[in-house]
Amino acid sequence: MNNFIYNTPTKVFFGKNQEDKLGEILKSYNIKKVLLHYGKESIKKSGLYDKVINQLKAFKIDFVELGGVTPNPKLSLALKGVEIAKKEKVDLILAVGGGSVIDSAKLISVGAKVDFNPWLFSIKEKTPNDHIPVGTILTISAAGSDMSNSCVITNDTTKEKRGFVSEENRCLFAILNPELTYTVSKYQTACGIVDIMMHTLERYFSSGDDTPLTDNIALGLLKAVYDAGKILITDPYNYNARATIMWANSLSHNGLTGVGRNYIMSVHQLEHELSGMYDEISHGAGLAVLWPAWAKIAYKAEIKRFSRYAYEVIGITKTNDSIADILKAIEETQNYFISLGMPKSLRELNVKESSLEELAHNTMFKGKRVLEDIIKVDYEMAYKILKLAY
Amino acid sequence: MNNFIYNTPTKVFFGKNQEDKLGEILKSYNIKKVLLHYGKESIKKSGLYDKVINQLKAFKIDFVELGGVTPNPKLSLALKGVEIAKKEKVDLILAVGGGSVIDSAKLISVGAKVDFNPWLFSIKEKTPNDHIPVGTILTISAAGSDMSNSCVITNDTTKEKRGFVSEENRCLFAILNPELTYTVSKYQTACGIVDIMMHTLERYFSSGDDTPLTDNIALGLLKAVYDAGKILITDPYNYNARATIMWANSLSHNGLTGVGRNYIMSVHQLEHELSGMYDEISHGAGLAVLWPAWAKIAYKAEIKRFSRYAYEVIGITKTNDSIADILKAIEETQNYFISLGMPKSLRELNVKESSLEELAHNTMFKGKRVLEDIIKVDYEMAYKILKLAY
Repeated sequence: MNNFIYNTPTKVFFGKNQEDKLGEILKSYNIKKVLLHYGKESIKKSGLYDKVINQLKAFKIDFVELGGVTPNPKLSLALKGVEIAKKEKVDLILAVGGGSVIDSAKLISVGAKVDFNPWLFSIKEKTPNDHIPVGTILTISAAGSDMSNSCVITNDTTKEKRGFVSEENRCLFAILNPELTYTVSKYQTACGIVDIMMHTLERYFSSGDDTPLTDNIALGLLKAVYDAGKILITDPYNYNARATIMWANSLSHNGLTGVGRNYIMSVHQLEHELSGMYDEISHGAGLAVLWPAWAKIAYKAEIKRFSRYAYEVIGITKTNDSIADILKAIEETQNYFISLGMPKSLRELNVKESSLEELAHNTMFKGKRVLEDIIKVDYEMAYKILKLAY
Repeated sequence: MNNFIYNTPTKVFFGKNQEDKLGEILKSYNIKKVLLHYGKESIKKSGLYDKVINQLKAFKIDFVELGGVTPNPKLSLALKGVEIAKKEKVDLILAVGGGSVIDSAKLISVGAKVDFNPWLFSIKEKTPNDHIPVGTILTISAAGSDMSNSCVITNDTTKEKRGFVSEENRCLFAILNPELTYTVSKYQTACGIVDIMMHTLERYFSSGDDTPLTDNIALGLLKAVYDAGKILITDPYNYNARATIMWANSLSHNGLTGVGRNYIMSVHQLEHELSGMYDEISHGAGLAVLWPAWAKIAYKAEIKRFSRYAYEVIGITKTNDSIADILKAIEETQNYFISLGMPKSLRELNVKESSLEELAHNTMFKGKRVLEDIIKVDYEMAYKILKLAY
């Protein structure tokens, strides 16, 4: 087991009606003025926006607003947020929405403390060491940004999508009410389930010594999500299934399922290039197509781990041919994603075959890196995976 | 799934040689003066004491000392600590040792902020709302106090052992180096394993709606500890097994394995009375004897949960008779505890049969409470469990 630092300071308020505690929570942290950050109209339609405003007013907490966050959140909007946060001297950014809104809030949070463009954090030319606290009311179970140290932003000028990790990116608090996700569309629910599974799959299929506790937790989380997803296909208002997915969203990306291991999340890196180039592609949909392709190549490097996944998560009946069992599990995983409503190929996502080379090239940061985990993903391998996923 | 608050702010530095970072860590929190709190001579013999002192000196951190913490830590010593902490104006209490040292530090930490006897927190007549931070270097994997919100103290005048939970009881940081536990005796290692398993067993065997994610994590943790314990019987210097036990020590009591459930930990309550009355009894040894007795009565109320435990943790081969399988799993659990070096009965722990009535009476706080979980533990039931464990 590798040495590790485990840091999950985010205080989680989980369950029904927890958003009604917002004012009380902000008061407990002595917050006087917030920047309310959100996406498009959905929180207004659902009534959540009004609830938030009423809480802020009732507890006499001053606020300014910045809406308009899009999927694959854009640098340009975050820079506007930085300007507002500085000018208005807010002492918390309240992200009401999904992972895109939270990630945008995170960039504002670190950007407001420096005099340069925080994109320099994204491209790792600078390292943040201070931030304005971020609190969130989560409305989509997917990215796990509410408890993660990760922030992914797309530069709308260069079309680059870049993530950076920092302990400055941890939210102060997260309000997670599974009922707020009842109205998430079937497609977006599916994208979320894939993203959640992938955060743990990419930690589990990694190199390192034996880590039985981390592995058991990882497999247990995957199984719970897999089962809950099946329920949600026919019963989107099932509270316990929504709650399972929402809590897994947090635990899958806060570090828990990978401690003690070496992981670099190659499939995520490939997907970031994909949805960076094709803005209309949802992160989860991209992952759903790319992971099975990666797995069909990578399984040979980790037969033992893939076997446990096959038997303990997917529930493949054990035969004498463990390779066949693993391949069946990978196929079954892809079929599961398809049953949730996910595409089965890059072609189905309207990706041009002619862009595969550029995607592979971009994933390698144009020759500046190689991704080495249980398999080595260099340009040729990236291209091979993309081609197989096409 | 019940609503819950999840709060695990303790920053964990896990792995080999992490204690060498002590000075750096204290500096990162801007700590100027610490109260170094520890037990008897073992940290001096092992060289850890010198390492700590050298770090404090090298980083120019002022310190005062209070050693002498015993198992079942005593109120009288904690009160001395409160006096020192107030007089010396320390800004962190550094607990170097096991759960007893940490719990003693926690009482000092909240006691130093009030003008009354902090025992009033222990008996829940007062609620803390401030504390001096506690940091720890853990030397025994057992109590999970390094990440828990719990503090258990014995009043050496009244012989009462009382625990209270509060978010003020969360440590600021915890340094967990599994190598520091190599020299823990076989007996104390076993006591620790039982305590760790019990923190999750008592959360898992509880009432509430379906909580598949919490349950899968709980069972995965139990399985990892069960397996690692078997390794340590013959190979106490196995790093990965020591690491598994140490990390499980933290996760088993930080809240993770019980979120969304209703649990009150009846067996822990019974055991607190036992080791409160018999100071020489280790908490883990008491639990090892009491839990199987409780389980033999309680399993009927939760066949489904006990079945999963039997098959997924203990590895019982499934037959058509699930009751027989469960009883076999309970017996197997007790045999496992015995194989680790634990006693098999209260008699073996030199408990007088004549004290069982008083123990049952004390567990009910002399008629002031009943413990209601999957079974109702009132005076008669407490007596029945104690008698069965005798």
